[in-house]
Amino acid sequence: MNPLKQLNIGLVGAGVVGGGVVKNLTRNADLIADRLGLRLHLKWVCDKDAARLAALPLPKSVKTDDMQQVLGDPDVPVVVELVGGTGFAKKLILDALGRGKIVVTANKALLAHDGEEIFKVAAKNKTNLFYEASVCGGIPIIKALREGFVANQFPLIYGIVNGTCNYILSRMSEEEKDFDEVLAEAQKLGYAEADPGLDIDGVDSAHKATILASLAHGFWTGYDNAYVEGIRHVSQMDIQVARELGYAIKLLAIIKSTNEAVEVRVHPTLIPQRHVLASVTGVFNAVAVRGDVVGDAIFYGRGAGADATSSAVIADLADAALNLRDGSIQRVPAFVSHRLQPKMRTIDDVESRYYLRLTVEDRAGVIAKVSKVLGDADISIASVLQRESETNRVPLIMMLHTAKDRAVRDAVTQIDRLDVVKDKTVVLRVESFD
Amino acid sequence: MNPLKQLNIGLVGAGVVGGGVVKNLTRNADLIADRLGLRLHLKWVCDKDAARLAALPLPKSVKTDDMQQVLGDPDVPVVVELVGGTGFAKKLILDALGRGKIVVTANKALLAHDGEEIFKVAAKNKTNLFYEASVCGGIPIIKALREGFVANQFPLIYGIVNGTCNYILSRMSEEEKDFDEVLAEAQKLGYAEADPGLDIDGVDSAHKATILASLAHGFWTGYDNAYVEGIRHVSQMDIQVARELGYAIKLLAIIKSTNEAVEVRVHPTLIPQRHVLASVTGVFNAVAVRGDVVGDAIFYGRGAGADATSSAVIADLADAALNLRDGSIQRVPAFVSHRLQPKMRTIDDVESRYYLRLTVEDRAGVIAKVSKVLGDADISIASVLQRESETNRVPLIMMLHTAKDRAVRDAVTQIDRLDVVKDKTVVLRVESFD
Repeated sequence: MNPLKQLNIGLVGAGVVGGGVVKNLTRNADLIADRLGLRLHLKWVCDKDAARLAALPLPKSVKTDDMQQVLGDPDVPVVVELVGGTGFAKKLILDALGRGKIVVTANKALLAHDGEEIFKVAAKNKTNLFYEASVCGGIPIIKALREGFVANQFPLIYGIVNGTCNYILSRMSEEEKDFDEVLAEAQKLGYAEADPGLDIDGVDSAHKATILASLAHGFWTGYDNAYVEGIRHVSQMDIQVARELGYAIKLLAIIKSTNEAVEVRVHPTLIPQRHVLASVTGVFNAVAVRGDVVGDAIFYGRGAGADATSSAVIADLADAALNLRDGSIQRVPAFVSHRLQPKMRTIDDVESRYYLRLTVEDRAGVIAKVSKVLGDADISIASVLQRESETNRVPLIMMLHTAKDRAVRDAVTQIDRLDVVKDKTVVLRVESFD
Repeated sequence: MNPLKQLNIGLVGAGVVGGGVVKNLTRNADLIADRLGLRLHLKWVCDKDAARLAALPLPKSVKTDDMQQVLGDPDVPVVVELVGGTGFAKKLILDALGRGKIVVTANKALLAHDGEEIFKVAAKNKTNLFYEASVCGGIPIIKALREGFVANQFPLIYGIVNGTCNYILSRMSEEEKDFDEVLAEAQKLGYAEADPGLDIDGVDSAHKATILASLAHGFWTGYDNAYVEGIRHVSQMDIQVARELGYAIKLLAIIKSTNEAVEVRVHPTLIPQRHVLASVTGVFNAVAVRGDVVGDAIFYGRGAGADATSSAVIADLADAALNLRDGSIQRVPAFVSHRLQPKMRTIDDVESRYYLRLTVEDRAGVIAKVSKVLGDADISIASVLQRESETNRVPLIMMLHTAKDRAVRDAVTQIDRLDVVKDKTVVLRVESFD
């Protein structure tokens, strides 16, 4: 029978997620071994920070600060990269792949920027790279797209893929607090970084969207082709008005494929309150997948954190172990190209419905002036809501029917030049995904 | 390199799901071949109904009414059983496994009753059996439990696993119609069978719960050990009262593991309206999984229908094909035993919160009498709600704190004997899954 009874693993990066992997691999070691018929064994844990290493409940002989000890060990066929960042981590991964080792990583930023190159190196060296943990932590969305839904084309994938933003928007909605106040609290609680830009400006969501889009459509869509807009400009008033109109505001990653082109975009979005995603609150993530065979499916779970993410890392290690045992390292390759004429749609040509919040003078004729600009651009208005105000500046909310993004933005530029318009108009996209 | 460029498939049963498999395998044939690096090829489609066969858009040479032609073909290593039922289907599956063929099936009833025996036959013949399509149609929950969440113990799994019941309860809730009326409409629309018992009495849900519980806990929990209660007794009044109290009523399958024992139960359940599962309406299914590593995750999608189910069948075929190509047929076996001391908890010892709806005389002292019975049984009342009525018989709703099921049922038996109680008390369980 088969000789492989134990997979020797080299783990590089003993931070939050690395520590979680050590903890959970130890905790459920017997169960995992029963299920797989082989043991996942940490042969090396490498970190340059001695204090981190010391804190791990592992024998000293396992710990090292020398990455070469891990990479150079011929008895370690799998390297787990949990260093993060795009510099050192990339070198480490390329080095490991170059030696024919299998790599498991949670590094979404690196894959979003350099995935195409890294996947090619994996293929060239007849090895493999697993990255379930890179998108939405514990949710097995990568496996679902590649295996569970292998029979499907994906006209639409969308979701809440950043827990920090969802936490902030949820609390703004529940407690009627402003963005800055909630962000400060989130930072205090550890739900947002001291430098929160990666999350709240949508960058992290776009990393994940790029990975999902590329996998789903079989060509590298490229981070630079994703449209990215964060949540800094979403105000308490927008959340309240949206609620009155029957909507919740969520930061969504949206991947649509129509007319032979794929669009990838991240932006705050009004979705109907009755939509399942509207009930996803706090730090949770949820990804909706529309397959041409399976119909609509949604995956919900913790998108970050040591435990949830290590669940995904360990699942990847299990796949790697079974493949190694069976001599089928590339059973499901890191990336499979399958669209012959890849084409991306830019944000200019994206079609959406829109929510506009104008700040206008409280006098007659304002709506007529604004409507004329929209009408001239062939953009039709679905509804208008004028809110009361104690000052002479009143909020005017317009819901627009489906229009091209470029046309709407151009019209808003014109609207903002009108003398009756007193502040920059807030533009949010509206989707119901029917 | 590898010789297998095509997997020859023998499909038995060309009904609704079988037809869906044919349609979708044909429709996305090139895409699937690109993704897998090999082709899924229908060599035989077998059905004893000539009209069904004639309706399929396949060459005549593929169609047969002779099962032995499929089973006896040495060039067909995989048989798909979509006949349904537990008689002929079982013989077919055991015959195929006995010849070393891999079996793919959607047959939840058969697996719930005879899974243990069938899995053993698969193991004995060094072959495999795939059954993603048997639980919740297109939702890849089997793969998630076995692979995506391989690192996890599962203290709790629960979900809406029967679309017919969820459709009926959703429409009762939305349209304030009674059970019988909605059932009749569901039958007209094809969402419920002419003989609806398998669905509305909870049997189908319990089949699925048995399969999930066994997989999750690594021993065969057995269909007969599941507690099963359907939705016939859920009234419009219960739905309305529940809503007033902040709850929705859903038919749930619940698999809890605590204190070294596993409980499997299916019954209508009050869950908080803010719970994600409360927003799962219509024919959709959703399964929530609590892993000790991953935390809470939920999978949502279409639980039935030709297309959704065939998405799962094709995914299983893809796994079977890759395993055959790589000579690792039993890569992830049909079943892996991993709990050494399997123990089931019967419904008597299950702990839950409860909703009681009594029908009582409209006079003083009633609540005192009822409360005394509960108090004597050490069951504490969380809240009481008396509804107005135009008659002398009024509904009295009591929400109970956590108690043992047997104790509550015994107390209700006593309550129903009180002279002030005028009808059989409705007992529903309440869960918040916090």
